[in-house]
Amino acid sequence: MEAIIIIDVLRRAQAKVVVASVGDELEIVASRKVKLVADMLLDEAAKRPYDLIVLPVSEGGLGGAQAFASSVKLVNLLKKQRESNRPYGAICASPALVLEPHGLLKGKKATAFPAMCNKLSDPSEAENRVVVDGNLITSRGPGTAMEFALAITEKLFGRKNAIELAKTMVFVRP
Amino acid sequence: MEAIIIIDVLRRAQAKVVVASVGDELEIVASRKVKLVADMLLDEAAKRPYDLIVLPVSEGGLGGAQAFASSVKLVNLLKKQRESNRPYGAICASPALVLEPHGLLKGKKATAFPAMCNKLSDPSEAENRVVVDGNLITSRGPGTAMEFALAITEKLFGRKNAIELAKTMVFVRP
Ligand SMILES: [Cu+]
Repeated sequence: MEAIIIIDVLRRAQAKVVVASVGDELEIVASRKVKLVADMLLDEAAKRPYDLIVLPVSEGGLGGAQAFASSVKLVNLLKKQRESNRPYGAICASPALVLEPHGLLKGKKATAFPAMCNKLSDPSEAENRVVVDGNLITSRGPGTAMEFALAITEKLFGRKNAIELAKTMVFVRP
Repeated sequence: MEAIIIIDVLRRAQAKVVVASVGDELEIVASRKVKLVADMLLDEAAKRPYDLIVLPVSEGGLGGAQAFASSVKLVNLLKKQRESNRPYGAICASPALVLEPHGLLKGKKATAFPAMCNKLSDPSEAENRVVVDGNLITSRGPGTAMEFALAITEKLFGRKNAIELAKTMVFVRP
């Protein structure tokens, strides 16, 4: 669900979104057996640079988080993203299970799914629903995915566009 | 996005959800080119009764709303649902473009995507983000889909379960 919310909101914001599968097939079985079709495999997607890379994994999708964490190609892509000062983000299980083990949270405030916040490098602001620390954007779970997607929209396209988009979607921050 | 949020939330609530396609194929191109795979075609799905039927269509998915409105099988299924006093719901464009033209809002308060609320039978409470009037549950757009899904959860499984589920998803009502 986090994935779809992020993809859909960013496409509404006119971002060119590429949905990449870290598996061998385009069809992805997401959490709760929701089936999605990716645009391309990560092998193909990793050939180009991106303004922003997001890892969406629900707390139920631990298989997904493991697949992310063990994908050398994805981890290298994220490390390159960090080194070149380009934004990257993760939500729910991903900050703790994918970014943290590969040093991608080092020196950064972040948040994650509540039960996993003890694994963060700097959880001092982890109670917030979305945490933006420089180029790192993190968030907590399915119920914060819309705010996360709007924070990414703000990062890419500015605050005014994010507020406008929230309004057209009939979204109100809690 | 509305579809996925509803499917995912209801499966978390332990509902047995069947995702049916009104088209000829299981693969559905939803709004913003998000690709989903349905569990079965509507022809197959229409053979059994359901505790609740939901129509998820985003305001961008007008093709989807037209497809719903012109599916005789779907409309008959909804009419049977209403006649047998079983719950049904719709969000965004669907209340105005699918339920209303087929008399499925008659005598009921409802809401819909803001620009479409002038088409409702009784828009007297349409400013609310979710409207429950007896067996009819309606809501406004992508940004209200989570609240809509939780209102359906409450209808099926009670308020306590809905509140508990919201909490595990880190969702807070605005
Ligand atoms: Cu999650």
